[in-house]
Amino acid sequence: MVVVGAGFSGLAAALALARAGARVRVLEARDRVGGRVLTGWLDDGTQLDLGAQWIGPTQERMYALVSAYGIDTFPSAAHGAGYVLRRGGRSTEPPAGAEELFAALDSLSAAVDPAEPWRAAEAPRWDRTCLTDWLEGTAADPESARYAGRLLAGGLLAASPDEISVLQMVFYLRGGGGSRLLLGMAGGAQQDRLVGGPAALAQRMAAALPEGSVTCGAPVHAIEQDRAGVLVHTERERVAADAVVVALPPALAGRIRYAPALPALRDGLTQRVPMGSAFKVHAVYPEPFWRADGLSGVGTAVVGPVTETVDNGMPDSGRGVLTAFCYGDEARELREMSAGARRDALLDALTAAVGRRAGRPDELIEYDWSADPYTRGCFCGALTPGSWTRYGPFLRRPVGRIHWAGTETATRWAGYLEGAVRAGERAAAEVTGADRPAD
Amino acid sequence: MVVVGAGFSGLAAALALARAGARVRVLEARDRVGGRVLTGWLDDGTQLDLGAQWIGPTQERMYALVSAYGIDTFPSAAHGAGYVLRRGGRSTEPPAGAEELFAALDSLSAAVDPAEPWRAAEAPRWDRTCLTDWLEGTAADPESARYAGRLLAGGLLAASPDEISVLQMVFYLRGGGGSRLLLGMAGGAQQDRLVGGPAALAQRMAAALPEGSVTCGAPVHAIEQDRAGVLVHTERERVAADAVVVALPPALAGRIRYAPALPALRDGLTQRVPMGSAFKVHAVYPEPFWRADGLSGVGTAVVGPVTETVDNGMPDSGRGVLTAFCYGDEARELREMSAGARRDALLDALTAAVGRRAGRPDELIEYDWSADPYTRGCFCGALTPGSWTRYGPFLRRPVGRIHWAGTETATRWAGYLEGAVRAGERAAAEVTGADRPAD
Repeated sequence: MVVVGAGFSGLAAALALARAGARVRVLEARDRVGGRVLTGWLDDGTQLDLGAQWIGPTQERMYALVSAYGIDTFPSAAHGAGYVLRRGGRSTEPPAGAEELFAALDSLSAAVDPAEPWRAAEAPRWDRTCLTDWLEGTAADPESARYAGRLLAGGLLAASPDEISVLQMVFYLRGGGGSRLLLGMAGGAQQDRLVGGPAALAQRMAAALPEGSVTCGAPVHAIEQDRAGVLVHTERERVAADAVVVALPPALAGRIRYAPALPALRDGLTQRVPMGSAFKVHAVYPEPFWRADGLSGVGTAVVGPVTETVDNGMPDSGRGVLTAFCYGDEARELREMSAGARRDALLDALTAAVGRRAGRPDELIEYDWSADPYTRGCFCGALTPGSWTRYGPFLRRPVGRIHWAGTETATRWAGYLEGAVRAGERAAAEVTGADRPAD
Repeated sequence: MVVVGAGFSGLAAALALARAGARVRVLEARDRVGGRVLTGWLDDGTQLDLGAQWIGPTQERMYALVSAYGIDTFPSAAHGAGYVLRRGGRSTEPPAGAEELFAALDSLSAAVDPAEPWRAAEAPRWDRTCLTDWLEGTAADPESARYAGRLLAGGLLAASPDEISVLQMVFYLRGGGGSRLLLGMAGGAQQDRLVGGPAALAQRMAAALPEGSVTCGAPVHAIEQDRAGVLVHTERERVAADAVVVALPPALAGRIRYAPALPALRDGLTQRVPMGSAFKVHAVYPEPFWRADGLSGVGTAVVGPVTETVDNGMPDSGRGVLTAFCYGDEARELREMSAGARRDALLDALTAAVGRRAGRPDELIEYDWSADPYTRGCFCGALTPGSWTRYGPFLRRPVGRIHWAGTETATRWAGYLEGAVRAGERAAAEVTGADRPAD
C-alpha cells in the first residue's frame, strides 16, 4: 500500500495498514514528517510550537498515541487574568451577547450529522448563508457579532466570517463537541501541549513503521490506477501498490495528476476547499513578564490584527513566549505588509494586550503556512459557501483504489490532529476491509 | 517566450508576442488547440458546437479575428416562437418580475469597475451575499427569483445562484455589457456562429504562428523562474524563456508546480475560482420539426433539468439539432444519474419544450467539460463568495516572469472567447512592455 503524505493522517493510516499486515510505503513531499506541525527551539531549550500544538479532552486517539509512544504532555500556561481587547480598551469580559451566539450555533449544530452535514433539514439555507450575515441577524449588538465571528470563523477556521457558511461552521462545531470545548484552554481543545511538540510524536510514529517505509523529499506528482493496481509517481520513482491513501488536504490532493482523470464531482470538490489563512507569531521575551503583573497573556480581541494570544512559554520556567494568532483578513493584510510595518502592527497589538514591555521582544518568530507549498494554509481547508450540499458527498468517497484521508475528511475533530488520526485510521480500514473505526 | 495553453487566450497571446518579434513556444496539454471549444460533425456534414460557440455585438476582437482569418459566420437559427417552461406549463412569457430583476442587477453593476470590482462601495456586502438571497430579497414573487437565478447564475456562469456572490454576478454583467446583451440571441452574445466552429478559427490562429511554435500533447507540469529566466517543464522537455504566459483558468494554473513557490495570496486565489458546472447535450433529429410547428426551439425554463435550449442546426437546412443546456445543481444531478435515467430526464424536458417528437432523437450527444482533466468545468471559473474582495487583486498581478491570461482574467467579456482573446493580448503586452490594449 502507498500513503501520500506523512502528516498525522498519513502516519496513522500507515500504522494501521502495517498493523493489518500490509507492506506500506509513505511518500512525503517535505524533508520531514508531521505535516502541519513544526517545532522550533530557542537557545535556552524553550520549545516553540510553530504549527498545530494542542490536544484536549475527548481527543482520545491523540492521548492514546501520546501514551503509546511515550510522549510527555504539559498543560498550557495560564497564570492570572485573561483579557478581552475591545473597542473601548482592555476588558476582562467579552461582549455581553457573545455567549448567546456561541450557544445558538451549538444548538443549530445539534441538527447536523458531521458525517453527512448536507442532510440537515436546514442545510441548503445554512450552506448559502455566510456566518457574518447569520451573526448580524442574530446578535443583540454589533460588537458581539464581530467578536463571535472572529473567534469562530477566525479562531477555529482561520478565516473571516464572510468566507464561511453557517453549515461549515456548525459542521465544525459539532465535530469538535461544541464551542466551549473547541475554544477552551484547560478543559478544552487547547488544554495540553506535547514535550518536543507534536513533531516529536510524528517522528516516533514514523519510526514505528518498518525500516524504510517513509521516504521524505518525495512529492507525489501523479497517481495511475487500473484493474491491477495503482502506480504512484514521484520525481524519482514509481511505486506500485494495491491501493493508495491520499492523506493531503483536498486543495492539495487536487494538484496531483490522476489517470484516469478523477470523476467530475470529486475534482470539483477539490476546487472548493480552500485552506485557512492563519498567521501565528511568537514574541520571545527574557521572561514571561505578564505573569508577574497577574496577567495570563491569554486573551482575545474584538479589534486589531491579533485575534488571540496565549502564553506559549513553559508553564513554570524559561523565556517568555507570547504567541499571537491572526486570522482571515487580518492575516492577509499582515502578509501584504513590509516586515517592519507587520512588526509594528503586531507589537502594538501585544502591547495593548499585556502592557508596554511587550513592545520590545528579543525575537519575533513567524512561520507562514500559507507560503509553504506543501500546506498552503492553516489550520485546515473549509468548504466554500454553497459547496457542502453540492460537493460534500465526494469528500471521503473512494475513487477506485484511491482513498482519501487528511483531517478535512474527519467526522470528529476535523481540522485537528485528532481528526487527522481518525481520518487516517478510517481510510486504512477502507483499504483493508476492517471494521470501520468510529471516526 | 513560452505560452502555456493553446486555447483562445494562449493563441492570442502567442500571436501578439510573435507580432512583437518574440520567439514563442506554445505548450498545449491536449492533442489539439482551441481549449474549451470542440466541433463535432454529423454524417451529413451538420456542425455540432460541443463547447463555446457564439460571438455577438461588441465582441470586437473576435469579429476582427474571424475576419482576419477568413472564417465565415452565420446567424444562430431562430425561426418562430420561443417558449418559457413554467410551473404551469409552456408559456410565451417569462415570470412577470424577471425583467425588473435583470434591470436591478444591471443597475448595481454600473457601480463596479470590472478591472477592480473589489473597490465598489458595496463590494464587501455584495461579495458575501449569494445571488439567491439577493434575488429572494428583491423579487416580487418566487418564480421570478428562481427564473432570474437560473438564467443569470446558470445561463451565464453555469452555477447555481447559491454558489455565486452578487459581486461576481455584477462583475460579470458589467464586463459583458449588461444582461440584455449577455442573454440575447440576435443582437446579443448568442448572435453568430462560426462555420467550422470556433475550433476552425483556433486552428487558423495556430497555423499563423511560425512553424513548430505549438506543441500539443505537452501538459506543463512545472515552472521554475530565477533572475535569468523561466524554465517550463513538460513530461518530455524543458523550455527556457525570458517569460511565460499561463493561459489557463486559475483552478488549473494552481495545479502547476512553481519554483519558487507562488506567493501565498496568489496561490490562495487559485484555491477559490472553481469552474462552472454545465451540461450541454445535442439532440439530433431527421429535421428541425419544431420549425414546421412555428416554434423556434429557443427557450428557457423555470423548472426541470434543462434551463435553456436553442435550435443549433444550420439556419436553413440539414438535420435538426436541439441543444439543451443544464447548469449547476441540475448539471450535477444529471452527471450522477445512469445514462438511461439522464436520457429520460433530458428527453422529457425537450418534449415539454417543443413537443413529443423531441422524445425520439436519432442521437443524443453529450460532452461533459467537467470530466475533461484539462478544463474541469465550463463555461469558466467564478470566484467563490467572499473571495473577490480578498483575492481579486491577485487575479492578474504577474509573479516575476509569470503572467496570467485566460478568459477569467479579462475585464471585458470574461468567460467568453472575446475575454480569452483580450486577456491573452493584455498578458502579451505586459511581457513585451507594449502599451496595454484596452482589455
